[in-house]
Amino acid sequence: MIRREYLMTPGPTPLPPEVLLTQAEPMMHHRTPEYTELFVQLIANLKEIFLTKNEVLVFSASGTGAMEAAVANCFSPGDSVLVAHGGKFGERFRDIAKSYGLDVVEYAYEWGDVADPEVIGRMLKEKPWIKGVILTHSETSTGAVNDVKSVGEIVRETPAILIVDSISGVGALEMRTDEWGVDVLVCGSQKALMTPPGMAAVAVSPKAWELVEKSSLPKYYFSFSKARKSMSDKSPQTPFTPAVSLTKAMSVGAKLILEEGLENVWKRHQMLAMCTRSAVEALGLRLFTRNLERSYAVTAVNAPPGIDGTKIVRIMNRKHGVILAGGQSQLKGKIFRIGHVGYYSFFDIIVSISALELTLRELGYPVEMGTGVAAAEESYYEYINDK
Amino acid sequence: MIRREYLMTPGPTPLPPEVLLTQAEPMMHHRTPEYTELFVQLIANLKEIFLTKNEVLVFSASGTGAMEAAVANCFSPGDSVLVAHGGKFGERFRDIAKSYGLDVVEYAYEWGDVADPEVIGRMLKEKPWIKGVILTHSETSTGAVNDVKSVGEIVRETPAILIVDSISGVGALEMRTDEWGVDVLVCGSQKALMTPPGMAAVAVSPKAWELVEKSSLPKYYFSFSKARKSMSDKSPQTPFTPAVSLTKAMSVGAKLILEEGLENVWKRHQMLAMCTRSAVEALGLRLFTRNLERSYAVTAVNAPPGIDGTKIVRIMNRKHGVILAGGQSQLKGKIFRIGHVGYYSFFDIIVSISALELTLRELGYPVEMGTGVAAAEESYYEYINDK
Repeated sequence: MIRREYLMTPGPTPLPPEVLLTQAEPMMHHRTPEYTELFVQLIANLKEIFLTKNEVLVFSASGTGAMEAAVANCFSPGDSVLVAHGGKFGERFRDIAKSYGLDVVEYAYEWGDVADPEVIGRMLKEKPWIKGVILTHSETSTGAVNDVKSVGEIVRETPAILIVDSISGVGALEMRTDEWGVDVLVCGSQKALMTPPGMAAVAVSPKAWELVEKSSLPKYYFSFSKARKSMSDKSPQTPFTPAVSLTKAMSVGAKLILEEGLENVWKRHQMLAMCTRSAVEALGLRLFTRNLERSYAVTAVNAPPGIDGTKIVRIMNRKHGVILAGGQSQLKGKIFRIGHVGYYSFFDIIVSISALELTLRELGYPVEMGTGVAAAEESYYEYINDK
Repeated sequence: MIRREYLMTPGPTPLPPEVLLTQAEPMMHHRTPEYTELFVQLIANLKEIFLTKNEVLVFSASGTGAMEAAVANCFSPGDSVLVAHGGKFGERFRDIAKSYGLDVVEYAYEWGDVADPEVIGRMLKEKPWIKGVILTHSETSTGAVNDVKSVGEIVRETPAILIVDSISGVGALEMRTDEWGVDVLVCGSQKALMTPPGMAAVAVSPKAWELVEKSSLPKYYFSFSKARKSMSDKSPQTPFTPAVSLTKAMSVGAKLILEEGLENVWKRHQMLAMCTRSAVEALGLRLFTRNLERSYAVTAVNAPPGIDGTKIVRIMNRKHGVILAGGQSQLKGKIFRIGHVGYYSFFDIIVSISALELTLRELGYPVEMGTGVAAAEESYYEYINDK
């Protein structure tokens, strides 16, 4: 049979045809008025999506590069930072901070759980010399989502800055950068922005810029100051040759979000997540993350007892062309993850649930065909008639 | 009139349709056997192009990111490095080394000139504690090309490693990484590799790996060790989400080079450079760089006395759609640069020379129409009948 693929991972995600095709356009030079126009509009659109008036800088790198940039630009050797982590990407931020010789105060909560803002507040009181709090908004490895707003309310009353990895959050989940007091927002291209991986953006508040000016950690390619300087040129630019085709792709992705309307995009992601959850629960599966703090970007599902999650992912891929993500690190084999961040409509969920029903039955799990699909349809029907 | 553009800058450069179109293919996930296969083949092809058996690592970043990676991975704070520079990109490497707190011993030669290998040898004798020599192969800002082979012969007899920025060199100019003793070769995607900007590669020798293991400078995204570890996985990978569409593009670009034949690609670049030089000299213009050490990637031409080089570039672009590069930094307005690295044939040179004739006459420089074109044709005729 012909193999048709359905990419349902939480990044990279499928791309709209407009985004794909813009990459196939002839290469343009980046030191031209045409490029500057595109670049300036992209930055303006990112500000609207991030809900920020802060400066937005872009880097040709994947999200991890921008996470490193946040650390290297805001701190000096020996500075104390509080890293809250309960998943692979929270741990990555911890590892980056350690690589840079920072004094890392860890707030490790269970994978699948979220950070308690009050604990962060208490830790900041105990160690008032902490210069930054690092938090993961949507933890892609577990599907949990942190209460950035409450943490922001606490951190803004202290001298510390709040750095948030919202790589799989912003654009899919409500993220009000300025209102919530996020000093450095980190975003990647390959999630809600509907762009291939390889671009990252940060929004930097005046409070963070004060630290940037004092920071003595080494940086060059990821230097916020260099990026800021190039952006204040007569023809705003990036300091180094940008990934031109990805910048074009990102500018199309950002435009599509604003055309749909940011709040509508959030609602669509909520609908996608709700339909997915109804479906997997109707199939008798258990969601991995706690009830109230689930990301709309990805749904993490426990593999049924006695069934290896890796097998589910493999059969979904090999037999049905539906690419899911497995569990990472300590969750390997225990969960599987259905991504729905970016260019997804309701019927993408139907495809993955249908493939899941077929796969589970093959693995000996009792499935009445159509049960999951029916539940997703019920949720969706309610959603569209409720509007 | 319809505007048709001809990109004649030394990066980004025009792309073959196969490279453009591969970026428009549906997004694929990077943790799949299909991606691994593509990635493994790309690395193998890059090794053939770099003429190296050393490990080759790729990064989703532009060339500057890989330059920084070379510094951050090979040295420790206070280490002495000798940076030879005579152009914007040599200076960039110096600045990166300084940003990382290295003791930078500068060998500054005039812009347009090249480094004297004997001077490097003498400096290494005087300061035997120097841990690395940093050299620009093809200096894109001046069009000069360094004698990497001779420098390699000297450096290999010392404990120092040789780091070479060959971003606009490799693939266009002879570069024999292993034979010439290049310990860290730095390459970018947007030149001879006929790929959009945003990817970079390094080849790292065993001598360099010894320094990498001792290096205490901070790094994470650009960590050679992390990249090496992911490459030795059962399914070789990059440690962080790669720029998937650019990786695909690069794999097509690399394949095209090997299909044409590496030495044929070098010869084609030599032909493009020779034809360009004949043409501009026939028009009475002076080449900026010295006679014998000119890159085949770019031809730097002095603006005629009394004419601002910036104006030449502007008219070429606005009136004729031919995009050249101007002079950078201290050379602004004094030179203009015709790029011919990557996907160029002889007739691309004809287009730019024709536009140059029209532009020069408009600026009041005496031009007999067709003189430059005729000279290029003579050179080319000789080239194709000499084979």
